[in-house]
Amino acid sequence: MAFFLGIDGGGTGCRAAMADADGRIIGQGRGGPANINTDVEGAAVNILAATAEALEGTGADPRDLIATLGLAGGTMAAATERLAGLLPFARMQIVNDAVTAARGALGAGDGILAAIGTGSVFAVQRGGDLRQVGGRGFLMGDEGSGAVLGRSLLSLAIRAEDGFAPMTPLLQQVLEEFGGIEGIIRFGNSAAPADFARLAPRIVTGDDPAARQVFDAAVAEVRHILTVLQGDAPLPVVFLGGLGPAYAARLTQWPQRPALGSGVDGALLMARQMAGAA
Amino acid sequence: MAFFLGIDGGGTGCRAAMADADGRIIGQGRGGPANINTDVEGAAVNILAATAEALEGTGADPRDLIATLGLAGGTMAAATERLAGLLPFARMQIVNDAVTAARGALGAGDGILAAIGTGSVFAVQRGGDLRQVGGRGFLMGDEGSGAVLGRSLLSLAIRAEDGFAPMTPLLQQVLEEFGGIEGIIRFGNSAAPADFARLAPRIVTGDDPAARQVFDAAVAEVRHILTVLQGDAPLPVVFLGGLGPAYAARLTQWPQRPALGSGVDGALLMARQMAGAA
Repeated sequence: MAFFLGIDGGGTGCRAAMADADGRIIGQGRGGPANINTDVEGAAVNILAATAEALEGTGADPRDLIATLGLAGGTMAAATERLAGLLPFARMQIVNDAVTAARGALGAGDGILAAIGTGSVFAVQRGGDLRQVGGRGFLMGDEGSGAVLGRSLLSLAIRAEDGFAPMTPLLQQVLEEFGGIEGIIRFGNSAAPADFARLAPRIVTGDDPAARQVFDAAVAEVRHILTVLQGDAPLPVVFLGGLGPAYAARLTQWPQRPALGSGVDGALLMARQMAGAA
Repeated sequence: MAFFLGIDGGGTGCRAAMADADGRIIGQGRGGPANINTDVEGAAVNILAATAEALEGTGADPRDLIATLGLAGGTMAAATERLAGLLPFARMQIVNDAVTAARGALGAGDGILAAIGTGSVFAVQRGGDLRQVGGRGFLMGDEGSGAVLGRSLLSLAIRAEDGFAPMTPLLQQVLEEFGGIEGIIRFGNSAAPADFARLAPRIVTGDDPAARQVFDAAVAEVRHILTVLQGDAPLPVVFLGGLGPAYAARLTQWPQRPALGSGVDGALLMARQMAGAA
């Protein structure tokens, strides 16, 4: 009897869902971060934990599963190979989490996905053809992401304290919380993207001038990416992720629609398609 | 008999000079990187190696030295304390390398220092009062630095390959050299600031549109910092570091002057001042 596993993993956690041959979901699980660009071994541990939870009481064995994993960093060939070597599944494909999120969100229809949380990824589906763009990690990409927003705010706080940017109530508050410039630098030395992203809610909701400056710049960057992806025929945009609603409220020039399903749904659908069961 | 030691250390290496009680330089040495924001233990090893070279043939013992160390990251209290515990000198003070560079470059006169190499730091001296600003590291600061220039170029190369920025000959060349987007991300996962900075010469000299875009933005940022530091009475600017000449050629609205001495000279002067010998 065939069992199917869908995994959706990113910088803050991963989710697993298991389905039987008829596509009925028979188990679900959650685990810690699964970003294989930053930590392959940690991702494997967390994926296995989420899988174990999904398997509970089903009688299935991990070695019997046909799995699709949509993971942050899933475009990195070396990392996906290393991860595959750490997992016991019967068959598996590892793709970027933008791909599974887009499949889940858009189904078979044309559209654009903007998934913006701790990191960010974008995808466009046109005539069944799915292309993932953007994202690319905290250091040089992840446009509009919570981690990039948080880092920008801290950078601005340092500049304000040095006298090169206007001081604002939020920047003052952040400097006090972190222990001044030195405290911010120390934080940055060991902070993960998710740690930077914890500042995002105060940036996207507040009316502090520094928050507005940082968020406006990010909105402009995301608008540019979506404009390029739109091309000539306007496509509906699905905004996902913790910051999806904040961007959706600002980027209203295109039709928007809610996601048909989740990234886990997309992964599960792809797993069943891989086996010819969907 | 008193011996004085001056150390100037940054992201790419450190230099040591030793002077006798009369201020005559009697030994010099070089070592690897000494950035105590990123690696205190490595900095200690490299400082001791440079010191040993400076001591050769002088008959002096490290435990007899009165030392001033100007180091990248030298504003971090926790890091300077840890470093001090690893060094054997009789007396020592640890300051930011911008302070020793400014003392060496400006002597006692009023002026501004813009030291721009792998990292960047700025300082203003007015009426004997020295204030260091900017810098603050690769992740959230180091405005205009070679490392930040290199990261910006790679980020632009990723965006161009994804279709969100115009492709240029330099970006195409960089994508080929690094192995595409995936190669750039892999490089970024393990690259030190000095590795990013290796791209800087091609950015500040070339006439590639992407190089111009990245450098123009950096020049504007450095211009803003210097404008704030200038205040009302225009001060002469000393441009230092590997990228100093490139910025000096672009920022000609203020008087410029060459450095009176090096950061090691400044450190040595401060060591002698600390002991009342200068």
